[in-house]
Amino acid sequence: MTGPSVADVGEDGLVAAVLARYPAPPAWVRVPAGDDAAVLDLPGAGLVACTDTLVEGEDFHRRWSSGRDVGVKTAVQSLIDVAAMGGRPRALLASLAAPADLPASWAEDLADGLAAECARAGAVMVGGDVSAAAQVVVTGTAIGTMDGLPPVGRGGARPGDVVALAGTAGRSAAGLALLLAGHRADAPEPAEAAAVIVALIGDHLRPRPPYSAGPAAAGAGATAMIDTSDGLLRDAARVAAASAVVIDLDPGALRPDGDLAVAASLLGAEAMDWVLAGGEDHALLACFSPGTALPAGFRRIGEVLPARPDRDRAGFVLVGGVPRSGEVGWSHFRPRLRGAQ
Amino acid sequence: MTGPSVADVGEDGLVAAVLARYPAPPAWVRVPAGDDAAVLDLPGAGLVACTDTLVEGEDFHRRWSSGRDVGVKTAVQSLIDVAAMGGRPRALLASLAAPADLPASWAEDLADGLAAECARAGAVMVGGDVSAAAQVVVTGTAIGTMDGLPPVGRGGARPGDVVALAGTAGRSAAGLALLLAGHRADAPEPAEAAAVIVALIGDHLRPRPPYSAGPAAAGAGATAMIDTSDGLLRDAARVAAASAVVIDLDPGALRPDGDLAVAASLLGAEAMDWVLAGGEDHALLACFSPGTALPAGFRRIGEVLPARPDRDRAGFVLVGGVPRSGEVGWSHFRPRLRGAQ
Repeated sequence: MTGPSVADVGEDGLVAAVLARYPAPPAWVRVPAGDDAAVLDLPGAGLVACTDTLVEGEDFHRRWSSGRDVGVKTAVQSLIDVAAMGGRPRALLASLAAPADLPASWAEDLADGLAAECARAGAVMVGGDVSAAAQVVVTGTAIGTMDGLPPVGRGGARPGDVVALAGTAGRSAAGLALLLAGHRADAPEPAEAAAVIVALIGDHLRPRPPYSAGPAAAGAGATAMIDTSDGLLRDAARVAAASAVVIDLDPGALRPDGDLAVAASLLGAEAMDWVLAGGEDHALLACFSPGTALPAGFRRIGEVLPARPDRDRAGFVLVGGVPRSGEVGWSHFRPRLRGAQ
Repeated sequence: MTGPSVADVGEDGLVAAVLARYPAPPAWVRVPAGDDAAVLDLPGAGLVACTDTLVEGEDFHRRWSSGRDVGVKTAVQSLIDVAAMGGRPRALLASLAAPADLPASWAEDLADGLAAECARAGAVMVGGDVSAAAQVVVTGTAIGTMDGLPPVGRGGARPGDVVALAGTAGRSAAGLALLLAGHRADAPEPAEAAAVIVALIGDHLRPRPPYSAGPAAAGAGATAMIDTSDGLLRDAARVAAASAVVIDLDPGALRPDGDLAVAASLLGAEAMDWVLAGGEDHALLACFSPGTALPAGFRRIGEVLPARPDRDRAGFVLVGGVPRSGEVGWSHFRPRLRGAQ
């Protein structure tokens, strides 16, 4: 039923099958994927590059995520990091390490997901690699261009700046909580909950980050920016630490949306925990000088305060003035530590 | 004895420790590793990009390879692919997925190896990522520049071309065979064999590819080029297939060196098998129009013949005129298939 495995089709066969699924590249891809390396013609002043890995059992489960879902998620993770510098995503390389018995169709679906999300972000697949491993490990590396805009790092936030968010907060975590509680996008549910469950699980499995908000923020003079892959509190704390400031998030502006309220009541959970600590929304958190007209897609969610040496540690995040640890949120290796403590 | 694990130091602690080991980047690295993405100022016309993954138990064993060795090998695999297009390696990103109990010192040694090999190749580390996984998986992504030279793919070889090699053939495979037979670089051996064993095992664990030969070949008008990561026969077959020609390797020009002869006699092996089918030498195999003065580092090892439809399959590789399968050599997933057949 599952068809041939990656071992059945072999390394060269798998590479050929994957390459055949990518659309014809634009003219600036001078040598496309399939040779030792790709050769691209891009504006080289302000070239953006980053890499991110997804591991089966840690970042996704094959029983919940299709190959296409994992392809989308891999592309999202790397491409949104380009946008988080204010860059425009242009190209993606992806490496797959997989057990020999992985269905070849799963790997082909992965390629479809990678290509589909690249198309959404305005980027193209330009390379990859295939290896054998005990579990599925997918690494994406994104290349982007600043196109004359100034890169926006984490360290430029100043007291008085407005903190703004483009994208969602907590929806991915709510979707994960629904999956962990046994809900499925295709299971029969009471009518009012079914649409919410489908939407939140979809947002967890296939996040839809606001790529164009990144260059828009850079163009509007954003002083600092980060993508909220590890949760609002944790990523805001990274900006606060790098900028030696305190960030005060406004709980009123972060009030959970109706979907989150429905899911929280279904699960007996606290929706605000998802909003503040849930990872993988891949929204963009940016700081702007006071008075800046926020670019389309951004809404105000807080403000930047000075770190007072007598009271605050730089890197503190407050919610409505109350200190909250920035250590809340996703951290690799942490799950494995739980049993040991 | 092994000190804290990666879980003990945590994701952010590990990233900070790794970043601290990289030397200060040159001025064209506008935003170095440590933010969402690096921002580089490079000549963007002819930007080279490729990615490669190493998996514990498949591509290396921790009992044989130090963290530093794996760092070197990861950098080599990606950076030489840039040179195999005729490009100059400029930047490397590396992603580490590892068990929570991996010693943090191993990950720091990995960073040292990555940085050391980057320095050897004229490149700099510009980014990375850390994840939890059951086995160690390291993915390197290299970025290079063509600097005005024409990219050299696999598909341009023409009948009459000279086939040339820069770098070694068979030394990595001989080193691996010695390790598999129980030899170690630090074990007492008969004096005459000891130096050979140390040298061959060293070449397996820490290959030293001829980076500058890549741009030199492109500058000399190479018609096709590939790096011999999967063995001479297999990689020559890829050039022959992409170019729709036959490649005839000259066994006289590929005669095993003295070290290989010593190792072969020690192990009762056939040195020529290592030369023809051994992987991971990361030499550069290039084709040149007849009469081209070979660039420094290259030696003639064969010639390109037309594929005659009545007799030859395009992609055939001959050795001294005798057909040899291009399927010999390293292929992922193959090892796992052995038990099933």
